[in-house]
Amino acid sequence: MNAPIGVFDSGVGGLTVAREIMRQLPEESMIYFGDTARVPYGTKSKETIIRYSRQIVNFLLSKGVKAVVVACNTASALAMTELQREYVVPVIGMVQPGAVAAMRATKNKNIGIIGTPGTIKSGQYGKYLRQLDPKVTVVTKACPLFVPLVEEGLIDDRITEDMVSRYLREFRQYHIDSLILGCTHYPLLINPIQNFMGDQVTLVNPAYEAAKSLKQLLEENDLCAEKDHTAKYEYYVSDMADQFLTFADRVLPCRVDKVQPVKIENY
Amino acid sequence: MNAPIGVFDSGVGGLTVAREIMRQLPEESMIYFGDTARVPYGTKSKETIIRYSRQIVNFLLSKGVKAVVVACNTASALAMTELQREYVVPVIGMVQPGAVAAMRATKNKNIGIIGTPGTIKSGQYGKYLRQLDPKVTVVTKACPLFVPLVEEGLIDDRITEDMVSRYLREFRQYHIDSLILGCTHYPLLINPIQNFMGDQVTLVNPAYEAAKSLKQLLEENDLCAEKDHTAKYEYYVSDMADQFLTFADRVLPCRVDKVQPVKIENY
Repeated sequence: MNAPIGVFDSGVGGLTVAREIMRQLPEESMIYFGDTARVPYGTKSKETIIRYSRQIVNFLLSKGVKAVVVACNTASALAMTELQREYVVPVIGMVQPGAVAAMRATKNKNIGIIGTPGTIKSGQYGKYLRQLDPKVTVVTKACPLFVPLVEEGLIDDRITEDMVSRYLREFRQYHIDSLILGCTHYPLLINPIQNFMGDQVTLVNPAYEAAKSLKQLLEENDLCAEKDHTAKYEYYVSDMADQFLTFADRVLPCRVDKVQPVKIENY
Repeated sequence: MNAPIGVFDSGVGGLTVAREIMRQLPEESMIYFGDTARVPYGTKSKETIIRYSRQIVNFLLSKGVKAVVVACNTASALAMTELQREYVVPVIGMVQPGAVAAMRATKNKNIGIIGTPGTIKSGQYGKYLRQLDPKVTVVTKACPLFVPLVEEGLIDDRITEDMVSRYLREFRQYHIDSLILGCTHYPLLINPIQNFMGDQVTLVNPAYEAAKSLKQLLEENDLCAEKDHTAKYEYYVSDMADQFLTFADRVLPCRVDKVQPVKIENY
């Protein structure tokens, strides 16, 4: 089935998820929607996130998608239950694949989670981890400055290193051995985070794990594209396409020629 | 006339403007609206900002305000013309009072402006300054990390000092002698900015100037509250009231007891 995958995020960060899907499922077409008019989701309430997510899934369905990937960790944490209950199309998020991978990676069962205030406050990653193993110790930390630092391009920079050490310092005393990068922007900070945490800590990228889960889900539901299918990618945003192109150029393996605006409030 | 003043901002930053109004016009009641569901405005397009601003003015009018202060610099820069044309109630923004004050402060006519990407890209401060004096030299710089740094509480911090020096360094070569703090959050960074720029540079706070303009406008239009009127303040937000209270406590001279949610998209 050659219909596209729908991928959405609060903005540009979800392109790190789109990138993983392109790499692992090169024959699948994709419709990407970035809610750039209403970014960020990380500081908004659950009710708002659910309402926004519904509008976006409605838009993606209008484009004929066969499955939906909620690339935004905050929306995955706050709206998955509602989306999976309300829609027939398969919906997968970041939290479950990320939690499963962290559980697989940990030896001492001390797992760290970093994300936006919304994701951390929701406690969804921890809830999932404890469902998998009630004996797990979960340590969390919201890192609100990481997204603006990444978007300002300060990736290999002493300011980012300084903030990494401030935010992550307390993980050391808990001797975590795996750390979930619970926000789409954070995989772009893998180097400073790994440098600070040391090699003994496994960094879990939910984007990578979600793409693996998506592959499995498509296979199980007989929804895979044909092997020789040439993937097409379309990009939609709710506002300000220029910024999107700059970020896409930094993240994606292919060039983005066109980004189309959508009045998402009408869906 | 004891009707309230309407003040709106994209979020919590406009409370620095509310503070100036409370100080300079202690008998005036105020209705404050913070668009916390759709913050930030600084990276959104002109069309979006105009649409959002209209909804908010409609809401404020439904509360019976006698004048509207656009506390958000981005909305002042992008939506003032439309708002002043479309509404009968007097509307004042940040840009004009800020520009007039900078013009009064400068001796060498080299004026710097800092703000969000939206405010800087709009060029509105520069346009206004050149209307006042075509010979003025205007140097601008967008400082996207200042707002998240302030909201993270990193005010007297080496990271903020570092970012101040990176963003403002280039102003030195232009020998500016006055600098417009073109974003509501920036007055909270007056100390590190003044330290870096030196005492010979006058920092212009448009919030202070706007409150002065408001006073004059009320007097000219015979709209002032009675001298013995006890001001009442009401606070409304489009999302997530908790964060609002924390910030209000840091900024306002009075305690905020209640913040009420508004479905702003319905206006």
